[in-house]
Amino acid sequence: MSEGESCSTFAEKVRASTYEDFVAAADRIRGPALHTPLIPFETSDGRSLRLKAENLQPLGSFKIRCGLNALAALTDQELAGGIATVSAGNFAQGLAVAAKWRGVQVTAHVPESASAVKMDALRSLGVAIVPQSIAEWMRIALSHHTGRNDGVFIHPVAEPAVIHGNGTIAIELVKDWPAIDTIVVPVGGGGLATGIALAFQALGREIRVVGCEIEGAAPLAAAKRAGRPVPIECQRSFVDAIGSSTILDEMWPLLDALVDDVVVVPLEAARHALQVLATRHHMIVEGAGAVALAAALSPQCGGRNVAAILTGGNIDSRSFCEILVGGGA
Amino acid sequence: MSEGESCSTFAEKVRASTYEDFVAAADRIRGPALHTPLIPFETSDGRSLRLKAENLQPLGSFKIRCGLNALAALTDQELAGGIATVSAGNFAQGLAVAAKWRGVQVTAHVPESASAVKMDALRSLGVAIVPQSIAEWMRIALSHHTGRNDGVFIHPVAEPAVIHGNGTIAIELVKDWPAIDTIVVPVGGGGLATGIALAFQALGREIRVVGCEIEGAAPLAAAKRAGRPVPIECQRSFVDAIGSSTILDEMWPLLDALVDDVVVVPLEAARHALQVLATRHHMIVEGAGAVALAAALSPQCGGRNVAAILTGGNIDSRSFCEILVGGGA
Repeated sequence: MSEGESCSTFAEKVRASTYEDFVAAADRIRGPALHTPLIPFETSDGRSLRLKAENLQPLGSFKIRCGLNALAALTDQELAGGIATVSAGNFAQGLAVAAKWRGVQVTAHVPESASAVKMDALRSLGVAIVPQSIAEWMRIALSHHTGRNDGVFIHPVAEPAVIHGNGTIAIELVKDWPAIDTIVVPVGGGGLATGIALAFQALGREIRVVGCEIEGAAPLAAAKRAGRPVPIECQRSFVDAIGSSTILDEMWPLLDALVDDVVVVPLEAARHALQVLATRHHMIVEGAGAVALAAALSPQCGGRNVAAILTGGNIDSRSFCEILVGGGA
Repeated sequence: MSEGESCSTFAEKVRASTYEDFVAAADRIRGPALHTPLIPFETSDGRSLRLKAENLQPLGSFKIRCGLNALAALTDQELAGGIATVSAGNFAQGLAVAAKWRGVQVTAHVPESASAVKMDALRSLGVAIVPQSIAEWMRIALSHHTGRNDGVFIHPVAEPAVIHGNGTIAIELVKDWPAIDTIVVPVGGGGLATGIALAFQALGREIRVVGCEIEGAAPLAAAKRAGRPVPIECQRSFVDAIGSSTILDEMWPLLDALVDDVVVVPLEAARHALQVLATRHHMIVEGAGAVALAAALSPQCGGRNVAAILTGGNIDSRSFCEILVGGGA
């Protein structure tokens, strides 16, 4: 969202995204970002379920798609003073890779609670890390201003180029599985769900969009109940890439209109999904990815041909192994 | 190898495999077997390295390819009395899936030392498991006879339909990466290396084939040095899907001719590769898969555009986590 722009203006601008916006994004990111595989998951209820394995992306999450596309929209002159973002880790990584190729410094404002594995990855990419309290971190996310002179601000969610980058997943889904009728998307800031929903529309496809959240940190479910974003108390768990204390005002009109249902997943179901993905599919997912599978398997989900987005794989090895063999996290 | 057939006759028959044999196999297995992704792996020496992620196959290994193709070659009448095989687990699984669809009973003769996770998977597929001493297990593998009345015997390695099924990997590699010049293949019985090498030849491509083995259980390296198969002492480790006590006589002429080099990987390098695949690529591989990456990264490997086959992901979660976070196995 640009300065002075209202939330509804931002939403209208984003909703006006065209087929060309998404196809151009897909062209820009091809190569550095993988066309990820869609892996069949055996179900016992006759529905078809496939997993979009974004955890296999370079740097371990779908965020490379939007990082690449956001940077491609900026000129070298605009980038001369560096770029800044506010990110729990994955988006900053995606941005950092793209920035590295163009010799641009990235500053990431991260929550103090961000996982060590993500911070290590950022440091190894040369990102300057600024830990922030949750309150200040949210302030930056809400205002699109870091309060420092650290370059062009790129929002990890509420940014058209980011949303178009996210939408490239829908292009691959429709190509690889024309019969898809339902998509299950973890909702953090809501940029992924928005991008995928709008890309399906731009492709002329009516696909049901099911958002998913984790029990104890489900701001979209709360907003849907209240009819507007409401602040919630967040419980921390191993699911760290989704679940903030509210839905951003600017994203609400989009999520309200584009997300058809929200499934809130119990922590135990997310743990079980993580175990199943490890033992049956030999993949490591972070909490949000496990939430997507758990939501897709829930009776609330519905759909005949359902794809679930395994958003990322960046989880501390110790936390992962604790869930896999130690029980509990 | 059929009864009465000499080793050199078997090798000649297999070497006469045609382009059509491999393409027909690819058609037969399409659907149940995935076209697995080829994942770029960042190197520091200017070589391009990509990983063929067969650990993502249903049942967690490339063996579904050859299991499906082997069974497709048999009529319902031939299958009426069931099928038997000799397998450490992965091949029997591949066979069992195909057999289930056709309502055929599978008996698997397994080494007493086979991993629990593989035995559990076999049981859940309805396979009858017969644990055997290593000596008896090898006798069955060498003779192609179980000594029981348990159905048509399908050898996991020395069987043309199995070798053609394995070769389907080469078809995907050439399609996805025309510039490939070197392939790194874990060598257990040698059926995978043979299938891939012959398929490349059938496709008219000269690709260097590098076999890889684990230190302490490297019968192909020993055979290459001696100029013939020689029995070796095997050390057990977490690498359990490759490394038997000798190369089968019937496979030796093929491996001698088709495998250009052998890289023997130290156990520590295999452990490290497993860790890197988990933390950087969010995939779980069994020991043989880790050996492939370690071999590809070794200075002995050579090549400019190198693909390594991550053969499977069936490893006990506890062993995996011990290596990932506990150090040592």
